[in-house]
Amino acid sequence: MAGTIDINCDCGESFGNWSMGADEALMPLITTANVACGFHGGDPLVMQRTVADAHRNGVAVGAHPGLPDLVGFGRRRMDISPAEAYAAVVYQVGALKGFLAPLGMTLHHVKPHGALYGMLNDQDDLAAAVAEAIRDTCPSPLLYWPAPVERHALPRAAAKLGIPVVGEVYFDLSYSDEANLMVERKKSVKDLDDVASRLRRYLDKGEVVSVSGKAIPLDAQTICIHGDGPNAVEIAQRVRAVLEEDGIAAASWQPPAGSMQRSATA
Amino acid sequence: MAGTIDINCDCGESFGNWSMGADEALMPLITTANVACGFHGGDPLVMQRTVADAHRNGVAVGAHPGLPDLVGFGRRRMDISPAEAYAAVVYQVGALKGFLAPLGMTLHHVKPHGALYGMLNDQDDLAAAVAEAIRDTCPSPLLYWPAPVERHALPRAAAKLGIPVVGEVYFDLSYSDEANLMVERKKSVKDLDDVASRLRRYLDKGEVVSVSGKAIPLDAQTICIHGDGPNAVEIAQRVRAVLEEDGIAAASWQPPAGSMQRSATA
Amino acid sequence: MAGTIDINCDCGESFGNWSMGADEALMPLITTANVACGFHGGDPLVMQRTVADAHRNGVAVGAHPGLPDLVGFGRRRMDISPAEAYAAVVYQVGALKGFLAPLGMTLHHVKPHGALYGMLNDQDDLAAAVAEAIRDTCPSPLLYWPAPVERHALPRAAAKLGIPVVGEVYFDLSYSDEANLMVERKKSVKDLDDVASRLRRYLDKGEVVSVSGKAIPLDAQTICIHGDGPNAVEIAQRVRAVLEEDGIAAASWQPPAGSMQRSATA
Amino acid sequence: MAGTIDINCDCGESFGNWSMGADEALMPLITTANVACGFHGGDPLVMQRTVADAHRNGVAVGAHPGLPDLVGFGRRRMDISPAEAYAAVVYQVGALKGFLAPLGMTLHHVKPHGALYGMLNDQDDLAAAVAEAIRDTCPSPLLYWPAPVERHALPRAAAKLGIPVVGEVYFDLSYSDEANLMVERKKSVKDLDDVASRLRRYLDKGEVVSVSGKAIPLDAQTICIHGDGPNAVEIAQRVRAVLEEDGIAAASWQPPAGSMQRSATA
Repeated sequence: MAGTIDINCDCGESFGNWSMGADEALMPLITTANVACGFHGGDPLVMQRTVADAHRNGVAVGAHPGLPDLVGFGRRRMDISPAEAYAAVVYQVGALKGFLAPLGMTLHHVKPHGALYGMLNDQDDLAAAVAEAIRDTCPSPLLYWPAPVERHALPRAAAKLGIPVVGEVYFDLSYSDEANLMVERKKSVKDLDDVASRLRRYLDKGEVVSVSGKAIPLDAQTICIHGDGPNAVEIAQRVRAVLEEDGIAAASWQPPAGSMQRSATA
Repeated sequence: MAGTIDINCDCGESFGNWSMGADEALMPLITTANVACGFHGGDPLVMQRTVADAHRNGVAVGAHPGLPDLVGFGRRRMDISPAEAYAAVVYQVGALKGFLAPLGMTLHHVKPHGALYGMLNDQDDLAAAVAEAIRDTCPSPLLYWPAPVERHALPRAAAKLGIPVVGEVYFDLSYSDEANLMVERKKSVKDLDDVASRLRRYLDKGEVVSVSGKAIPLDAQTICIHGDGPNAVEIAQRVRAVLEEDGIAAASWQPPAGSMQRSATA
Repeated sequence: MAGTIDINCDCGESFGNWSMGADEALMPLITTANVACGFHGGDPLVMQRTVADAHRNGVAVGAHPGLPDLVGFGRRRMDISPAEAYAAVVYQVGALKGFLAPLGMTLHHVKPHGALYGMLNDQDDLAAAVAEAIRDTCPSPLLYWPAPVERHALPRAAAKLGIPVVGEVYFDLSYSDEANLMVERKKSVKDLDDVASRLRRYLDKGEVVSVSGKAIPLDAQTICIHGDGPNAVEIAQRVRAVLEEDGIAAASWQPPAGSMQRSATA
Repeated sequence: MAGTIDINCDCGESFGNWSMGADEALMPLITTANVACGFHGGDPLVMQRTVADAHRNGVAVGAHPGLPDLVGFGRRRMDISPAEAYAAVVYQVGALKGFLAPLGMTLHHVKPHGALYGMLNDQDDLAAAVAEAIRDTCPSPLLYWPAPVERHALPRAAAKLGIPVVGEVYFDLSYSDEANLMVERKKSVKDLDDVASRLRRYLDKGEVVSVSGKAIPLDAQTICIHGDGPNAVEIAQRVRAVLEEDGIAAASWQPPAGSMQRSATA
């Protein structure tokens, strides 16, 4: 296999005096950063610093909006209305764009965070509102979402508005037999050889393996790495090493000329 | 005297379930709105509603960023660094722009709120940072500031960056002999005839009268009305009536062709 | 009928520069205040002022804790854990008690606010945690809850811990046929004669009438008045007038000697 | 020298998903914890966990209230009024006491945090208000403050109200020639031998040495260790080791029978 693949990571989730993640060490290893926008994490200074860091490393910047729940890190579902979801996403994406423009950067994509992401899996009215927010704020609307994307509310709503959806594949999380990501609240150390073998299988066959051993074909264009895992930097380095061995370049996802979607595994 | 003059008002300072100001009644009477951006007041839904209301009424929208002090309504000075001031203004202005773009509107100007405004009167390092934030976020950078503008730190810093400064005149606040606005923490009812006579004197002679009776010449291009005063709507109506009698049109400030500044009283 | 009845009202829901409710006018008309504790409304200064106002008027003070959602006024359900609910209630009740002690007052009761109240209707694990928080923070644990109380999770959990539950009856809200209160998000003006006739019926027969005309017997010991309704003060005055006509004294609920509960209609 | 000395440390400054300090490792090494109360750091769950941890380790708990500035970690001066300062301290101390009571603990002392501490060095009106808050909330009012305490506003105001002041000595910070602590915004690794020799000199002679080598006599009854320093645990271990060699027991400060103050160096 040849070609390119994107590597994305949630970044800028520090807040004030509190640090989170290994942004500085990860930036040289990734190609796209999902930057927190101040609701679940991040603050204006952190956002500015993170965007500048991405700029220095040639990393594309997407928005990572969350619920207005700082103490809960945006991980607790809230009964917000579609109107509230629209406004919350527009506000956060707009704020992030404020830091991009002075550096001549444009917003690359949007990827919802935490419980907002979870709610957008199945709440169609929220999903329609958030898809509109993406359309209304992105110069070139683009959604990042865990593959398989077809069955979830936001990717469906995005597709209806003509917004391309970039599928994510994870090698630092397990998949259920139903192809759902098994999220850890507290990240654990990952075995690097296991990450590498899972990545190789994906590159070879376009599939991941579930916890019970079931093969799950996935159409993904970007590898998501969790920046707050205890050995996130080592994972990213190993991913880069495997890609290099296979002659695959890491590059931020770009829409192919003449088509709305492409597959890294095609 | 003929020509046009701008009328601006702070808007969108409600928060969640709490209301403030008479935005709906004032919008048809003003020409420019300074919209709160969520730090001292306003929230994403309030911002969206306020921008939509301005759009319906043909009112230009400026940003009204404040300190991150919701419970203090941005009225308590804080020792923030220039870097924090820059980032706070970029964040807030960016967020507001998020709501303008979907309506085809562009940001008109920036006007700092409360204690941030007070700090920018005399802190040169903060002023330089905020002037850069205005330059970096406004499609056509513009600062609103109480006249006389020359002696204050932010207008000076703005002028250094080539940012035009629009001078404000107030008819619902008193002036000290040194031409300083005498801010009320709790707004009181204003005598409408007094407002009218002060406006007429300004239109005739380009001057306001201080509390001790001293005439103070002011070069202002916009009338600022406090939307949270108890008879703000009546004040705005009376101002419009006086302007109409004098054949002066109310219109949001626009840069004159070929010059950086103009005077409504010239 | 003779005896006494309690009149309670949510108070202290202003925040910073934003006002809510008619606390000052209502305090002389009520006997028990449920004071917001800073999570959904209220702030330290508002709490201090509200407690002092209650003290001046001989009004007993209960805690009115809410979800940590200021912009949503605590009205949006959040997926909080029992541990989070326990800690949130202990924190808020403790903070309120800080303002009671200097005035020689003791906490009278706890009454959950908004969506937290709603969640405690049916979530048994949350209810058990909040009942423990009430037990652990109240000098003489007491829960206020809309009657009929038996079928809801928190009153049940409270009863298990031996915490008395004071039933509330509402004359400014409608009841469904199932005896559920029909909450209005935006309070409307209430017909005072209607309030009076509903109160008289309750005093005479111990029952309220549902929207479809069904009689619903209720065992309540306190009348709850919504302080943020547009004619809340008039409603409170009318309630007091009707009680006076009937020779019923308004007094904050006190545990009867030798029993855990009493009924105002007994 | 024999006797006992107190060792205190700021604890509970994590927030939500963000960790700070090495509380778990430090608790067995200290005798008194200053626990953050949710304004500059800490949240209800963190407070509960920290208090429980202190309880398990036999550590006395004091309140560590700060300014309402989470993103600034309470380190930015704010122009708050005495009334706001009083209410902010009562609120925070009250909230913390909420977590002590269920464990049968009583509040030990109050120690202001960050910029609030700095403001209380020299603002007499704020100091009077905070001294009243301490008096009004502590079962047995007690203030912790860096020695020499006499010249600062809050210790003076506390003394006027009869509140004992416990002087702190620091071995992980430098002193200026004027006996001021030279605060580091970003804590650095400390040389353990240096800490030990400074502690020995203090135990022997009751003095510290300034950056220029000047001997400064200090009357302190507690050693403060910064829990967020990179080698805070090693520092605490070394302090304990030195004390043990000298036969000095570490114990939380207790008022001596029949007197208001005692000196560890007497």
